[in-house]
Amino acid sequence: MATTEKICNVAKRIKLAAQDNQVVVAVSAMGDTTDELIAMAKAISTIPDERELDKLLATGEQASSALLTMALHEIGLSAVSLTGGQAGIITEKVQGKARITKVDPQRIQNELAGGKVVVVAGFQGITDDATWADITTLGRGGSDTTAVALAAALEAERCEIYTDVDGVFTADPRVVLNARKLDRISYEEMLEMAEQGARVMHSRAVELAELYGVDIIVAHSVREVPGTLITREDRDMEVLNPVRGIAHETDIAKITIAAVPDRPGIAYQIFHALAEANINVDVIVQNVSLQGVTDLSFTVNLADLAKAEKALEPVVRNIGAREMISSVDLAKVSIVGTGIRSHPGYADKMFGALAKEGINIMSITTSEIRITCLIDKADVQRAVQALHTAFELEKPEGEVKSIIA
Amino acid sequence: MATTEKICNVAKRIKLAAQDNQVVVAVSAMGDTTDELIAMAKAISTIPDERELDKLLATGEQASSALLTMALHEIGLSAVSLTGGQAGIITEKVQGKARITKVDPQRIQNELAGGKVVVVAGFQGITDDATWADITTLGRGGSDTTAVALAAALEAERCEIYTDVDGVFTADPRVVLNARKLDRISYEEMLEMAEQGARVMHSRAVELAELYGVDIIVAHSVREVPGTLITREDRDMEVLNPVRGIAHETDIAKITIAAVPDRPGIAYQIFHALAEANINVDVIVQNVSLQGVTDLSFTVNLADLAKAEKALEPVVRNIGAREMISSVDLAKVSIVGTGIRSHPGYADKMFGALAKEGINIMSITTSEIRITCLIDKADVQRAVQALHTAFELEKPEGEVKSIIA
Repeated sequence: MATTEKICNVAKRIKLAAQDNQVVVAVSAMGDTTDELIAMAKAISTIPDERELDKLLATGEQASSALLTMALHEIGLSAVSLTGGQAGIITEKVQGKARITKVDPQRIQNELAGGKVVVVAGFQGITDDATWADITTLGRGGSDTTAVALAAALEAERCEIYTDVDGVFTADPRVVLNARKLDRISYEEMLEMAEQGARVMHSRAVELAELYGVDIIVAHSVREVPGTLITREDRDMEVLNPVRGIAHETDIAKITIAAVPDRPGIAYQIFHALAEANINVDVIVQNVSLQGVTDLSFTVNLADLAKAEKALEPVVRNIGAREMISSVDLAKVSIVGTGIRSHPGYADKMFGALAKEGINIMSITTSEIRITCLIDKADVQRAVQALHTAFELEKPEGEVKSIIA
Repeated sequence: MATTEKICNVAKRIKLAAQDNQVVVAVSAMGDTTDELIAMAKAISTIPDERELDKLLATGEQASSALLTMALHEIGLSAVSLTGGQAGIITEKVQGKARITKVDPQRIQNELAGGKVVVVAGFQGITDDATWADITTLGRGGSDTTAVALAAALEAERCEIYTDVDGVFTADPRVVLNARKLDRISYEEMLEMAEQGARVMHSRAVELAELYGVDIIVAHSVREVPGTLITREDRDMEVLNPVRGIAHETDIAKITIAAVPDRPGIAYQIFHALAEANINVDVIVQNVSLQGVTDLSFTVNLADLAKAEKALEPVVRNIGAREMISSVDLAKVSIVGTGIRSHPGYADKMFGALAKEGINIMSITTSEIRITCLIDKADVQRAVQALHTAFELEKPEGEVKSIIA
């Protein structure tokens, strides 16, 4: 919700939903509020204390929950706002990216029973400690996670997520002009899309939804067009195209540790240090060993690069590697779809489409329903467009029966 | 605290205090935050729900408490922020101007025992209800009230209030250029000054301080000059000037209910409706009854005018009064000092000074240590200056032995 005007629009949409349903809303902060709060904290401290930062950031959603509730009153709805703590969102005692351990929905249920729309401040919770309770935030994807957790705890019919796009697309519509909005997508496909760069939903909220079987609808907050349903895998696979979407991610960094002595236990030392620092490693490539040394490369999230370098410095010295080199000019492009499952034909077609564009593939990773290529960042837009065309994703569901020969 | 830079200045001052003392700090919101939040609420709703407004406004102090705590960490102090609720500030279940019913200082004491400076979000509390606890705000003077309440509950040596002025002055220094800063002032005098418009301290915090015998020092948040001590009345009255200060107030409104039938119980209906709406009424004037009807006038705080009019509308219809007329072009000017006690000579001198300036007095109210005149708003600056001069307030304490003949 960017402005007070948008808040009023959201309120109108809630009013429609509240005609036939009991409604609980989880809100995010308004527009740039979170970034502005972080900027204030950074003006005071280069590494702000995480407990205090959580307390600061939690004000963003507390404010927007109160404002949305006022907007609901203004159009004649009975409504009440609750902080994460008041809504019974209990988290582990970890600052900055706490996981929800429990939802105690009693107060929400009481308020619903009183005929109220309940507006919960998303992205935040409270630790479960009578005398030392502290405000926590849930980290990336936190507001969506709040929504799904509440839907699960309240056994809601569905969880609707309103955002600034119309739904989940076959590719980023800013990159591929004829990208098509999907009517439905399975949890598994959505997870792969999200993890490979699709920004529309954070994988964490999707995982939680899958775990509790919560149906999610992602739709635009203002435009009244049907969104995308994220749900269990469709049984009638025949009606769906085999490839559902192209995801891409440019916020990645590659770290190469050069001239690593090729001894057992070296890789463990490196990846253990990264795991200790809570850093996810993605694509890993180890060159053929020459004269007892090898080069080891892997990718990490761009946001984690500085932390990764810091964690690896002592290891690099310790194992006697020559040097550590970082580069940020890479990108990942992925095809995702349950129809892909173990058909090597799809990989073939993907590599062919990229080759035809003269795009060099540096490395490849796969899951059951995804194939990802690491490429040059400069090539990413052409790659996404080429793959979208190759897999005929502009065509309606079911029209693309089989891509492979 | 206006900016992040000011927050860092306040942090330095706290560090000095924390060298020899355990320190608990109550913070207000930064700069215009509260006004900005109110503006957002008003953009959404003309009369925002008070519960939601409290929740919105409470974010201001929550944010500044977190930021100040980060600033304390940055200069090497161990510190922790607490919301009003976490700090044990329990209030009655009234939104917008809740009174503190209890302070449970256990967590503060635990944190102090852990060697920490405790930064409490001022102006806010929480209702005492396990399952329905709500955030409340304390209304005007709320942050000062939090500070005094905490000082009382913790049996602190003193309560220091840092603000944007050097202390308590004989008159508003923006109006009277030779206004003099007072070294000390009694609770009683400060109360009268505050109630009659001196902005430096809200009467409510002073009342609480008087009740619990908390010494208050009001000083500038950055400039290192001695402030004003607010404490019990000085026994050696001879060393003080008999009139201590001139207060003035322009944020008042007059409501006249015209042609009220002059029956018993009418005044009760009017003032009962205002009391129900939690509105303080100040100067009341009832004209002599003519032909069974009378005009009833009274003043209220300008901020309460719309609420007062709304509360009175049904009453005016009900009692058969002709109409309700509001005006906002009035002001109050007061002389305050324990030396005034029941000496009619001071009133004489006050009225004389105003008359000499050609200022018309519409009505007069007094207390034991104060005389207040209702005048035209346009005359207020001349009135304050004239009274400051007449009572020789520019002279040091003790030099003005007696004003009256």
